[in-house]
Amino acid sequence: MYKFLEKINNPEDLKNLNHDELDYLSQDIRDYIIEVVSKNGGHLASNLGVVELTLALHRVFNSPKDKIIWDVGHQSYVHKIITDRKESFKTLRTLGGISGFPKASESPHDVFDTGHSSTSISAALGMAKARDLKGEDYSIVAVIGDGSLGGGLALEALNNAANLNTNIILILNDNEMSISKNVGGLSTYLGRLRTGKIYFKFKREMEFIFNKIPVVGKSLYKAAYKCRDWFKYLVVKGIMFEELGFKYLGPIDGHNIKTMERILSNAKSYKKHPVLIHVVTKKGNGYRIAEDKPEKYHSVGPFLVETGESLTKSNGRSYSSVFGDKIAELAKKDEKIVAITAAMPEGTGLNKFAEEFKDRVFDVGIAEQHAVTFSAGLAKGGFKPIFAVYSTFLQRAYDQVLHDICLQNLSVIFAIDRAGLVGQDGETHQGIFDISYLRSLPNITLMSPKSGKELENMLEYALKLEGPVAIRYPRGEAAEYSFEEKPVNYGKGEILLNGDDGIIIAEGTMVKRAIQVCEALNKQNINMTLVNIRFIKPLDEHLLDEMASKAIPIYTLEDNIFEGGFGSSILEYYSSKEKDVALKIFAHKNGIITHGETSELMKLEKLDNDSICEAIISDIRVRKNGER
Amino acid sequence: MYKFLEKINNPEDLKNLNHDELDYLSQDIRDYIIEVVSKNGGHLASNLGVVELTLALHRVFNSPKDKIIWDVGHQSYVHKIITDRKESFKTLRTLGGISGFPKASESPHDVFDTGHSSTSISAALGMAKARDLKGEDYSIVAVIGDGSLGGGLALEALNNAANLNTNIILILNDNEMSISKNVGGLSTYLGRLRTGKIYFKFKREMEFIFNKIPVVGKSLYKAAYKCRDWFKYLVVKGIMFEELGFKYLGPIDGHNIKTMERILSNAKSYKKHPVLIHVVTKKGNGYRIAEDKPEKYHSVGPFLVETGESLTKSNGRSYSSVFGDKIAELAKKDEKIVAITAAMPEGTGLNKFAEEFKDRVFDVGIAEQHAVTFSAGLAKGGFKPIFAVYSTFLQRAYDQVLHDICLQNLSVIFAIDRAGLVGQDGETHQGIFDISYLRSLPNITLMSPKSGKELENMLEYALKLEGPVAIRYPRGEAAEYSFEEKPVNYGKGEILLNGDDGIIIAEGTMVKRAIQVCEALNKQNINMTLVNIRFIKPLDEHLLDEMASKAIPIYTLEDNIFEGGFGSSILEYYSSKEKDVALKIFAHKNGIITHGETSELMKLEKLDNDSICEAIISDIRVRKNGER
Repeated sequence: MYKFLEKINNPEDLKNLNHDELDYLSQDIRDYIIEVVSKNGGHLASNLGVVELTLALHRVFNSPKDKIIWDVGHQSYVHKIITDRKESFKTLRTLGGISGFPKASESPHDVFDTGHSSTSISAALGMAKARDLKGEDYSIVAVIGDGSLGGGLALEALNNAANLNTNIILILNDNEMSISKNVGGLSTYLGRLRTGKIYFKFKREMEFIFNKIPVVGKSLYKAAYKCRDWFKYLVVKGIMFEELGFKYLGPIDGHNIKTMERILSNAKSYKKHPVLIHVVTKKGNGYRIAEDKPEKYHSVGPFLVETGESLTKSNGRSYSSVFGDKIAELAKKDEKIVAITAAMPEGTGLNKFAEEFKDRVFDVGIAEQHAVTFSAGLAKGGFKPIFAVYSTFLQRAYDQVLHDICLQNLSVIFAIDRAGLVGQDGETHQGIFDISYLRSLPNITLMSPKSGKELENMLEYALKLEGPVAIRYPRGEAAEYSFEEKPVNYGKGEILLNGDDGIIIAEGTMVKRAIQVCEALNKQNINMTLVNIRFIKPLDEHLLDEMASKAIPIYTLEDNIFEGGFGSSILEYYSSKEKDVALKIFAHKNGIITHGETSELMKLEKLDNDSICEAIISDIRVRKNGER
Repeated sequence: MYKFLEKINNPEDLKNLNHDELDYLSQDIRDYIIEVVSKNGGHLASNLGVVELTLALHRVFNSPKDKIIWDVGHQSYVHKIITDRKESFKTLRTLGGISGFPKASESPHDVFDTGHSSTSISAALGMAKARDLKGEDYSIVAVIGDGSLGGGLALEALNNAANLNTNIILILNDNEMSISKNVGGLSTYLGRLRTGKIYFKFKREMEFIFNKIPVVGKSLYKAAYKCRDWFKYLVVKGIMFEELGFKYLGPIDGHNIKTMERILSNAKSYKKHPVLIHVVTKKGNGYRIAEDKPEKYHSVGPFLVETGESLTKSNGRSYSSVFGDKIAELAKKDEKIVAITAAMPEGTGLNKFAEEFKDRVFDVGIAEQHAVTFSAGLAKGGFKPIFAVYSTFLQRAYDQVLHDICLQNLSVIFAIDRAGLVGQDGETHQGIFDISYLRSLPNITLMSPKSGKELENMLEYALKLEGPVAIRYPRGEAAEYSFEEKPVNYGKGEILLNGDDGIIIAEGTMVKRAIQVCEALNKQNINMTLVNIRFIKPLDEHLLDEMASKAIPIYTLEDNIFEGGFGSSILEYYSSKEKDVALKIFAHKNGIITHGETSELMKLEKLDNDSICEAIISDIRVRKNGER
């Protein structure tokens, strides 16, 4: 079926192909990616955009001697396919299969693990200095998107590059997009470079003048001659990068392998300078449906290749859409509500709000730090900012949350989506740290809803609170219950079940699981009390005292890392009150959790219903039999 | 004594002065700052550099209606003195006195609290959008140093500014310094702007040509005319900022009030554009001793005004210098050791290493994120990077530590200085969060030395370990003991005292305090076992089991926040092993700890010797009497 791809296993196989064959190979690779991603889900548009770029890179450079670092890494599928992972690529994003991101553990061709954006320039510079200090000679290439380039980490690295007197080759993969349409001054600037509008016009005009200047004297000629150099300098598209010490080459067509090969080979010759090659690509290139809607086909679940139609059956609404609908509704009544996203209006569900209240939503690009401190400014100005962000990306603004929001006790709401396991994106994206890194911050209120309805209630409630509030909720479908949902009260949990054999205290998404666990235990004649804690901070001390007074074992359930998490906070409370309780924490024991279905991963972590049931049964029996 | 300052209490008082009077006033303010800082300690050079700038700002703008945001904020002394805090300025940095940083709680003129760098542009933009949405009309000014501008957060904001269609006035206070000499491409670029070398030469040459072009025809004239506009655009110094959508004005002399007033007034007229005013100042201006050594007089303890000589008597070596000497020594034997600093070669003690191994030390500027990921690259390249950083600033790279170091299990050493309370810098700088934010990260080893000698041992030991290692040690003098220091073993603590009434388990700097507490308790016939834990992660499980088996109360001592800290980790361990222990945590209960002497603050936190003793005595007595 894939006639040309069949013959390609590793980069060496590419080197004997002519450009026609490369074109056919490109088509094969595109088809193969579409085939696999349409089955497994994954990042589609970005990979279709870099087929030719990846082939050109692997023809000009000798990986793994030469190092290729993929920023973010969701665009590394082509690279994976042609570096000995053609067959295993079929297992993409499945448990035990190939990761959707570069992984050094998979291949020596994956030289630096990525997942979050904007890391590649720093990593490349570090590797380049290591190479120089060792006196070795090879190329280090970082491929970064125009969206990622706007991230603070990338900009810091860009600023530091020239000082290091070394060479890296930075491929700026300019597709005018982050996940959504790109924003920012840098992006506008790249647009001007891409179109060449201003500069070409200027150049034409200058040439016209110079051609008409009569040689009236040596001095004028000399000056004009100097000026020509000047123009060369000024007309060089990319003065901003040149001013920062980069040699700028481009813009070039990222779907023309021949051109790219020429420029890439040229770039190799710079030894003490960083080089930036501005490559223009089209997201989704070659698959019309993705070309037309690159946001939608940035990251997809299984779909029908012919129509692009999603094959994921969804029974209910996602937490993201519950959030999105609710704040759009609340914003109608309260004009002080503003929303902030760091390049994720769709993923976070903010797009509805954005359509209705264009002036009150701010997409600041991939810039989580700025998003937080910008929110601080909005709060200082009397507004109620809601920063909608994934748990894993809020990590990038830890200090801003602490230093700019919490210390000043500003009323900013963090709507933390994708808290807990996220599944197929794997270890770099699991949202399992937020309870641990947030709950030690002063002034913050931290909530976790058990259902979509409770998320709505918490959002509404959070808007009335003073000071920072974080609400964490998971990826996927919002839980629903047949019973009535009670209103939210500050720092108060709720008792959902009463039983005398043990107590489960659960947070957020784990409440639903806890209900199922309690039902299963009930069948074994073990009757549990179940608490939905609602507020991870502050804790419901009264309720916790009441639970301690029952003198039966307590089990905490959370979708967060064990260390410093929710269970830990309960231990701290009981320790500070000198309450002697038997408490067992169910949490993630591993900080590195691979990719796969969330249900599979929960099993690995022994946080699935069966594992929890077994552990509780055995614990309660041991305790009852006094074997402890 | 201060004839001109005497008459000035608030910005209104400035507005009737003529420029001669302002010059005299500037001198008074300088003298006053030198007087107070020479007694209390504080940030000297940066404040002497902005006297005229601050006066110009307060004459042109109407604070607090117009908002002035001080990036970092250590240069806000002049601002404080002329905004109703002239007298209380004498209490600078003392407990209960004026903070060394802007504090909204002190004055309505302090509109945004700062402390860490690079926050001001984001905050200003947020406040500007709030103003616009409310339809209000006033100016928002952010004053940022050239060093701070290189921080990722500031660069993200710079990139976002033009998109927001609003006006802020950004004062780029260019003194060519962070705390140390500034680095980076942006800084080099600013240097070119400052000297005007390239641009003025270009401009002269172009003018020469144009004056000589004969009018040979309408079309040439027209083209030339257009080109003049072009030159205006290109010759505008600050094309990089202009390309990002800023109106660039400058560079101007930051010690000439008249010029600044003119440009600042001009900047007010832009309503939909951000404006950047490039102001060139001299750190330490007017005090020769500080002008000559701006690094040294950036932040100082009490000193003799006449000579600049320090009045702080130091009996021993600081932890920073123990660290600095030791790695310089180790680096002689191991050429794989490289060191990284984010603009703090002096503060972290790295300068000695930097002198001896110029090629192996990297000052990346105020760019903690980049520092960490750059270290990751160096580690990938086979080196042993040591990132020397203050605890409070490592907060700025939380995600890089997690995502780029820990997930890849890279061998990077974090030498975390200023862990625990730092004293006079106050709430934004207290290093009380690192145990909580680090110990939940996978693969990391976290150590805490009880003495200078143990820091040396730990450094040496850390270099032999695989994977990330963090060593936290406090500000100030390194502890010394008369007893012999035993070698470090992986994950092993040490028992320093044996007693049967209770157990203290202490980390790092708290070990010395614990010894004193044990001695005091001993006089009351309470005999304690004392454990120096050494490894906060992984914990010494064997030792903890042994302690639990004693069945006497356990007390943990740490210089870190209570939530998710060291004590919490011990609770987690005992809970997971189902050990029933009576454990009380001594840690900071407040996430916001004001400025003052560390000893005073420890008392406030009830972590001084007396408070700990009393609490232990009372707890042990209660337990012995079975009153619990």
